[in-house]
Amino acid sequence: MNWRLKGRKKMVQFAKRRESMEYTIHSMHQIMESLTNKELISFGGGAPAIEAYPLKVIQEITQSVLKNEEKAVQAFSYGPTIGLPSLRKAVQKNLLSPNGISAEIDEIMITAGGIQGLFLVGKLYLNSGDVVLVEAPTFIHAKMVFDSFEVELQSCPMDKDGLNIKVLEAKIKKYHPKIIYTMPTFHNPTGISMSIKKRKQLARLAETYDVIILEDDPYSEIRYSGEKVKAIKAYTNSKNIIYANSFSKIFSPGARLGYLVADSEIMQELVEMKLATDTCTNGLTQTICAEFFNKGHYPSHLKNICTIYKSRRDVMAKAIDLYFPEGTKHTSPDGGFYIWVELPEKLDGRKLLPVANEEVKITYSIGSDFFVEENNKGSQYLRLSFAGKEEHVIEEAMKALGTFFKSKL
Amino acid sequence: MNWRLKGRKKMVQFAKRRESMEYTIHSMHQIMESLTNKELISFGGGAPAIEAYPLKVIQEITQSVLKNEEKAVQAFSYGPTIGLPSLRKAVQKNLLSPNGISAEIDEIMITAGGIQGLFLVGKLYLNSGDVVLVEAPTFIHAKMVFDSFEVELQSCPMDKDGLNIKVLEAKIKKYHPKIIYTMPTFHNPTGISMSIKKRKQLARLAETYDVIILEDDPYSEIRYSGEKVKAIKAYTNSKNIIYANSFSKIFSPGARLGYLVADSEIMQELVEMKLATDTCTNGLTQTICAEFFNKGHYPSHLKNICTIYKSRRDVMAKAIDLYFPEGTKHTSPDGGFYIWVELPEKLDGRKLLPVANEEVKITYSIGSDFFVEENNKGSQYLRLSFAGKEEHVIEEAMKALGTFFKSKL
Repeated sequence: MNWRLKGRKKMVQFAKRRESMEYTIHSMHQIMESLTNKELISFGGGAPAIEAYPLKVIQEITQSVLKNEEKAVQAFSYGPTIGLPSLRKAVQKNLLSPNGISAEIDEIMITAGGIQGLFLVGKLYLNSGDVVLVEAPTFIHAKMVFDSFEVELQSCPMDKDGLNIKVLEAKIKKYHPKIIYTMPTFHNPTGISMSIKKRKQLARLAETYDVIILEDDPYSEIRYSGEKVKAIKAYTNSKNIIYANSFSKIFSPGARLGYLVADSEIMQELVEMKLATDTCTNGLTQTICAEFFNKGHYPSHLKNICTIYKSRRDVMAKAIDLYFPEGTKHTSPDGGFYIWVELPEKLDGRKLLPVANEEVKITYSIGSDFFVEENNKGSQYLRLSFAGKEEHVIEEAMKALGTFFKSKL
Repeated sequence: MNWRLKGRKKMVQFAKRRESMEYTIHSMHQIMESLTNKELISFGGGAPAIEAYPLKVIQEITQSVLKNEEKAVQAFSYGPTIGLPSLRKAVQKNLLSPNGISAEIDEIMITAGGIQGLFLVGKLYLNSGDVVLVEAPTFIHAKMVFDSFEVELQSCPMDKDGLNIKVLEAKIKKYHPKIIYTMPTFHNPTGISMSIKKRKQLARLAETYDVIILEDDPYSEIRYSGEKVKAIKAYTNSKNIIYANSFSKIFSPGARLGYLVADSEIMQELVEMKLATDTCTNGLTQTICAEFFNKGHYPSHLKNICTIYKSRRDVMAKAIDLYFPEGTKHTSPDGGFYIWVELPEKLDGRKLLPVANEEVKITYSIGSDFFVEENNKGSQYLRLSFAGKEEHVIEEAMKALGTFFKSKL
């Protein structure tokens, strides 16, 4: 039974998948309520900085696209379900090759954002009752997508260098998952990156146990320090690795663009799944985004946004060290948007959230929302996003939040 | 087993839904092969005329949107999953109220095109094994969407004024469908419109038998003759009527915009289904489309495109009368894009398609593709779309096609 409909009058019954989504839907609503409360300073969301949208360039490009009749017609017509060739080529050249992924054009599909990529892979592979193995903790929105296929979610702990491979292999043997979902670089929510050794091990496990690795990689371009690491997909020819990415963090979320990379036989099937979901992706933003890359704007834009985010990360990490209670631990990610904070044992981030909302007008994501177990596991953790706020706001808010936590010890 | 993978090596197994989509996927591919063959003059697709895109106005609006910082930021940010309020209000005022549908803002959701609306309703309601009742014939792409939920499709014959209600009621009693899918106005593929009496009867059946009526209405705005008829949803307060529409035919298909109208409790659930599919709809085209309506461009644009299409319909209908073999029957729709042609008994539209492709370089949609039975039912029918071709092309091609059919008698 759905919590919103309890006690309401009879309606035509919803599908069973609604029931298996119930817990995550409820969590997401509590999150959204806190995040959309305009009276709070939010470090909870995953949205990029508005200052990081390339609006000026987009304005120029859009004007020239709409003045060119051929391009304008293409932008407003039905397009191929797999995506516009110009954008798929731009992905191949600017995003895949530099990251060690060799893919043909027919192995790349444009999706309507990153989440749709995960959804389409689920749609192609997942039956009710199948097992999906995820990281503990994992991205809550991905969890919601998997829930909608009525699967059993199992999780595997992470070390400082990513998934614990030994536990993972034992869990594969025990649960026979259809898909292992991982975000190996600048993981959401922890910021952790998987070591090269583990990437190779994971690729081998995919072959040995005939399981799909769904590699979700929306943050890897946004690196501030450390050496670039190739994607898992770059270390193997296995057809069992499907790579998903998004333009939301490197271009803009409202453009609703992402991409999938898979072996061409699998890709043909993913395309059918998209055709049966929403026909094709928006032609206008595909055309604008393709021009953005093809006219060479990306390198300087990426450099610019990394400079913005690096400084915000540095300020946040330093402020946590300075102001949070003794015994607080946190990750120091080389990229991405998030710092994962472990509070001293006595503090419960979940219970304290409404109090922090009330007393210091600050909100954050609760660690327990990122675990698949339906209890309060992980409630000593918080996820803080440094992406969306200017340095002085981060500094002041971390001081207030740290002081708040100290007062609750 | 999937026809493309027969004999290929072992891969991770696809979900069962892929199997139930097999027949329609195969048909759609044959259709696409013929439609995308540049050497053929195609009357097969459902795309609007390129001349009917309001490109000039879009260019002006887009420029002003991108120059306005607030609007530009909105266009490129994550937006509400239910859609931008400005576009939902535009739908309410310009498209629903004039058609007799009274809906609150929270009962309207923007979707990524019309197909996504059908998909989301399926996602909320359909379990494997459920029955969906469709019209015979029905829209093939909708059939593909329902197939992906592993349902049993049953069909009900249509009269000249829409669904045969007597047979429908008997089928409801026999099969207990979860959803009845109908396109009551300028039906695809037949062009038929349902009478007001039957609309009211259908609305009553939805309540009596507790079944969802999914009313798909992408063509109703495009009327050339006859009196405007209100939507089924306008004749009832029943929560069991869910209304789906698209901006593809009245604005542009590449903008990927559509909308759903449902009771607010059901709408909240449809929003969750979208959140778990693709997060939210494209912000840029939502913003442009909202401005298009809110700045008052729609009435003159609609008048303009109806003039274009009416003339094409007239030319096609006349040419069929003139050139097709004796005994040919066809519908004369008051709107929409399609004429449904019944060939004399001796001619098989399915078998003759490759021959017509070869001999007269013309392609069309085969009637049998619009029936849910997996045999050649309906192969004496063709669907001809007059939307995309200029009058002289229609005239010449119908002459050639008619002469071709005569030669095969």
